[in-house]
Amino acid sequence: MSWTQVSCTVEDGVAVLTLDRPERRNAYTTVMARELAEAAAALDADDAVRVVVVTGAGNTFCVGADLAGAGTFDRSAQADAAGTIGGVARDWGGIGALPFATLRKPVIAAVNGAAVGIGATMTLPMDIRIAGESAKFGFVFARRGIVPEAASSWFLPRVVGISQAMEWVATGRVFDAAEALRGRLVSRVVPDDQVLATALELAREIADHTSGVAVATSRQLLWSMLSAPSPWDAHRAESRALVELGSGPDAAEGVASFLEKRPARFTAPLDGAGLGWPAPPDDLA
Amino acid sequence: MSWTQVSCTVEDGVAVLTLDRPERRNAYTTVMARELAEAAAALDADDAVRVVVVTGAGNTFCVGADLAGAGTFDRSAQADAAGTIGGVARDWGGIGALPFATLRKPVIAAVNGAAVGIGATMTLPMDIRIAGESAKFGFVFARRGIVPEAASSWFLPRVVGISQAMEWVATGRVFDAAEALRGRLVSRVVPDDQVLATALELAREIADHTSGVAVATSRQLLWSMLSAPSPWDAHRAESRALVELGSGPDAAEGVASFLEKRPARFTAPLDGAGLGWPAPPDDLA
Amino acid sequence: MSWTQVSCTVEDGVAVLTLDRPERRNAYTTVMARELAEAAAALDADDAVRVVVVTGAGNTFCVGADLAGAGTFDRSAQADAAGTIGGVARDWGGIGALPFATLRKPVIAAVNGAAVGIGATMTLPMDIRIAGESAKFGFVFARRGIVPEAASSWFLPRVVGISQAMEWVATGRVFDAAEALRGRLVSRVVPDDQVLATALELAREIADHTSGVAVATSRQLLWSMLSAPSPWDAHRAESRALVELGSGPDAAEGVASFLEKRPARFTAPLDGAGLGWPAPPDDLA
Repeated sequence: MSWTQVSCTVEDGVAVLTLDRPERRNAYTTVMARELAEAAAALDADDAVRVVVVTGAGNTFCVGADLAGAGTFDRSAQADAAGTIGGVARDWGGIGALPFATLRKPVIAAVNGAAVGIGATMTLPMDIRIAGESAKFGFVFARRGIVPEAASSWFLPRVVGISQAMEWVATGRVFDAAEALRGRLVSRVVPDDQVLATALELAREIADHTSGVAVATSRQLLWSMLSAPSPWDAHRAESRALVELGSGPDAAEGVASFLEKRPARFTAPLDGAGLGWPAPPDDLA
Repeated sequence: MSWTQVSCTVEDGVAVLTLDRPERRNAYTTVMARELAEAAAALDADDAVRVVVVTGAGNTFCVGADLAGAGTFDRSAQADAAGTIGGVARDWGGIGALPFATLRKPVIAAVNGAAVGIGATMTLPMDIRIAGESAKFGFVFARRGIVPEAASSWFLPRVVGISQAMEWVATGRVFDAAEALRGRLVSRVVPDDQVLATALELAREIADHTSGVAVATSRQLLWSMLSAPSPWDAHRAESRALVELGSGPDAAEGVASFLEKRPARFTAPLDGAGLGWPAPPDDLA
Repeated sequence: MSWTQVSCTVEDGVAVLTLDRPERRNAYTTVMARELAEAAAALDADDAVRVVVVTGAGNTFCVGADLAGAGTFDRSAQADAAGTIGGVARDWGGIGALPFATLRKPVIAAVNGAAVGIGATMTLPMDIRIAGESAKFGFVFARRGIVPEAASSWFLPRVVGISQAMEWVATGRVFDAAEALRGRLVSRVVPDDQVLATALELAREIADHTSGVAVATSRQLLWSMLSAPSPWDAHRAESRALVELGSGPDAAEGVASFLEKRPARFTAPLDGAGLGWPAPPDDLA
């Protein structure tokens, strides 16, 4: 694909998707939203991709929405372009970020600098966040007169807990990587020049040692069970997945390689991971 | 209003609501329950109030239910006064604490001393808890032969996680501020004489820099999305909120002030925050 | 009961249930699954038992499924023995672990060594996990070509958060007790020779100071409210429980003993704890 505000490389099973608008510190636009959604779909479909790392060009992750003036968040002129949900114009943040919630591959955010507004919220449907020491974060919406977007009102309390989420959202403060680590928004803080390398190392740990269909099915199970009423729903879904995967080539190879004390060579296609959620509702499919 | 067991002051957008029964270490009564509910409603309706801080008179937050003898928790004589829910007498803890779950303004608990039983659980629907170094906490219900109240069986696992919640509830132990911090019940522990000042500073950070309608809508979004099945529910609700707020005066001022590098002056009324939950069910409305 | 792969002792209200197959490092089998389910039912029914501690024989907790060769996870030959759920063979992990989710007594895992695969996931419906310094953990399923079981796709994100859960599940890595503590999988790490003693001390804290019916009802409330849409559901359930327990002997004794500054002697039977969830769905009852 030819994109203008994101770029992507794939090497040995690991994709690096870059927010690539360094002249504007990777500020988010409606173009970037569409390109992110397209990239997520392409990476999901590409069997050569096992893990996705998302980072920013230059020394910024994403400074937030590209502020074009006082009317930036007035949606009256933008409704048609975004499509609608529930009869209203769709939030552009969700358009770019939600496709990462349905990806069948794990996603790691390598936060190499400021991640503010949509720059912070777009990382929440991703599985893991690693930050550089000088990274800054901010859920600054209330300071701009608007509310959290990109479905972050759903994701943020699940990632960091409701109290930490409310403190960051109610104050709208910009905070540093150390506070992000204490608040469990990121799992690791490393020197700035090692953020991408650390993310790639983690991606390799996944790509080199696990079955793609097993990880894809696991990702669907864990995220979807956040919403399931009881553990018996999980018992039902896991039993189905185990019947399906347990008789497949990767389960045989996984056990055989372990017993033979050798690296596993997994071969099953991802198509086997046919569990339901996460998937967009009908009016967004 | 004239209350006898709570008192309230409002200064420059920040309300301080005090559990004010120091001669009984602010022990909780049915009178205090009603007065807390009335105060929450009054603070919600008062446009001059942006943030609510709750604290205790003297060097105690609240030692728990005022124990009047072995029949304290026998509800047979108290049912009429409390009203009913599901055909049974309503828990007095919930009567006093749940109105804070529906408040449109952020609530900060300044825990200036012992917070035991309902003294601990009443803080859970509040957004942020700050404790003094000598504060004590206890979910002591099992040591009194009863169960957690004030809807804490819903709130506590969401605030501190199910394992920490179960350890505190199953043992009923009284624990210190350091354990509360490690267990993420409180976000900060400060010297006793700085608890209220720290809470007020945090309240000022909110009141001085954010849009009231944006914070009110955000609070409703985050708490309600704890219960939403999927992030697409959030996408729907946020899109609606962004259409509404994005064309309002606070969004214009928020962006303009940021671009002009000057403090924002927000003016929108809170009435705009018409999102559904959190609101009591019909039989409690 | 006579079991062959688990064993159980009860002393002064505290049961110690041991995974007892040290010659295979307590590897999990279909026999062990059934015996765990039977043991959980027996411990639930035994009025002399207030708290359950689960540990492993020797210096291992449980190394995971007993790997019998490449066909270990092929369920086609095992469906009849396991029974079905939703038309497919039930996961053996869930058969052994889920009964601990419905137990009316608190359960403490004393993880005295390696807890890998089902050895890790079986501890998640338990309330508290304490680990020895040399314990190892691993959600290794993706390295074996299968997915998390024992309803861990439901439990794990609730215990450690979705991001930490995804990192451990997607990598399938084996990690040490320090990482388990940082990630909040365990609440305490102690020297190896003190794991069981620490768990027993915590069990005593519960058994000696609390009302059995109060703890049983609290356990049901907290776990079930994880799935309840709103705090008003908790208000409803707690109000009902308070009406029932508040007029019972343990509430009277709990308050009287506190006011008289003497140890409480609780006598109410556990039968009073008749709240609904957690209970298996109809097709598993």
